[in-house]
Amino acid sequence: VNLILLQSGDFLRADQVTLTDRRAQHIQQVLKAKAGDHLKVGLLNGDCGCGVVQKIANNHIEMTVTLSQSPPPKIPLTLLLALPRPKAARRIIRSATELGVEKIILLNSYRVEKSYWQSPLINDANLHQAVLEGLEQSGDTVPPGVQKVTLFKPFVEDKLPQLLESRTGLVAHPHATTSNPPPLGHKALMAIGPEGGFIPYEFEKLQEAGLQGFNLGPRILRVETALPTVIGKLFY
Amino acid sequence: VNLILLQSGDFLRADQVTLTDRRAQHIQQVLKAKAGDHLKVGLLNGDCGCGVVQKIANNHIEMTVTLSQSPPPKIPLTLLLALPRPKAARRIIRSATELGVEKIILLNSYRVEKSYWQSPLINDANLHQAVLEGLEQSGDTVPPGVQKVTLFKPFVEDKLPQLLESRTGLVAHPHATTSNPPPLGHKALMAIGPEGGFIPYEFEKLQEAGLQGFNLGPRILRVETALPTVIGKLFY
Repeated sequence: VNLILLQSGDFLRADQVTLTDRRAQHIQQVLKAKAGDHLKVGLLNGDCGCGVVQKIANNHIEMTVTLSQSPPPKIPLTLLLALPRPKAARRIIRSATELGVEKIILLNSYRVEKSYWQSPLINDANLHQAVLEGLEQSGDTVPPGVQKVTLFKPFVEDKLPQLLESRTGLVAHPHATTSNPPPLGHKALMAIGPEGGFIPYEFEKLQEAGLQGFNLGPRILRVETALPTVIGKLFY
Repeated sequence: VNLILLQSGDFLRADQVTLTDRRAQHIQQVLKAKAGDHLKVGLLNGDCGCGVVQKIANNHIEMTVTLSQSPPPKIPLTLLLALPRPKAARRIIRSATELGVEKIILLNSYRVEKSYWQSPLINDANLHQAVLEGLEQSGDTVPPGVQKVTLFKPFVEDKLPQLLESRTGLVAHPHATTSNPPPLGHKALMAIGPEGGFIPYEFEKLQEAGLQGFNLGPRILRVETALPTVIGKLFY
């Protein structure tokens, strides 16, 4: 945790917060903070700043906070991600949040097992928790939007073209014939398939909607490796 | 698994192998292969090619194989990695292998907990297993060298300068003052610290040995996210 994420309900006064949950535990047990210590804090959907510990006792912490810095800028990317295996999905959403992805759309695809959609690991509460962990890690305060789309065809045919009106569209695909994505100076939308890749029909539909296919070279990477690799290549 | 990794002991004749272990299980249960099917295979430390299933029965598979393609080229990178938490270490070594890292040196550092070095999760057999999984994922046959270095100072003072004679040296560090690593056209060595980063003394020693510090921007990434991000940025 590189930032203690505050919510408006934590505030007693404009500059004072009380924490009594896992954040208090973390501050006491992991950060081993004492009264007078300065901690990096941020308000969910707001500014970052500094918290000074005033009182600290078992699971009860009082801090005065000053919030005056903007959170780090997002990378201008909407991620269209075939729903990964639920355990991996949490990690991938956490790491996409760390990396600063603006919006994540979890999409169904032929090679996504139907049971994945029913898993409690990817219910809204657990995905929100993964997002919070990503924000706390990277020092950000603004959650990316996360959306689930269980029908591939109507989304790709009817919704995707609109999303691409203001964005460059890409699809990372091992069997794409070029390894050179266009240089990105502005907003982008990038699709990443499931393990095993999009099936040819899906890859075609995505290209018809306006996504340009590219590959990452001769190696086939796990989705959780491919995502930061391609974001590092294009946005870092 | 995108490649069935063969070892010399699997060969009955020059072009015929018998598999009876977890690979046979994987071919039968996950790939659901039948007699006549073609599978991508590769010989550990050798060439890649095609295997044709001849006989398939409970956990016993015979294939004829033709090995004629080179494995994908490595990226010319030696990774100097502060030993991560053991569970993460396995995943990180698997993903470094996927990405094609040539050599991995696991290094001690002030913020590496001593207990990590004792964990059975990072014994030689388990690290080798993680490497094999990375090769099978990415379609490679050549394991990266993996080495453990438990003493920071003598390694950095005495061994590191020699390693840098033929390599550009880098250290990814959140507090480095530049975000621009030098362009890499040739062999490199890159250090990545533990969660929390190298301490200032260590960062100085690494710079004295010839590593150039750079940061990845305002976000603090988990090591398992930072590694593919920086490799994507510099090598993909």
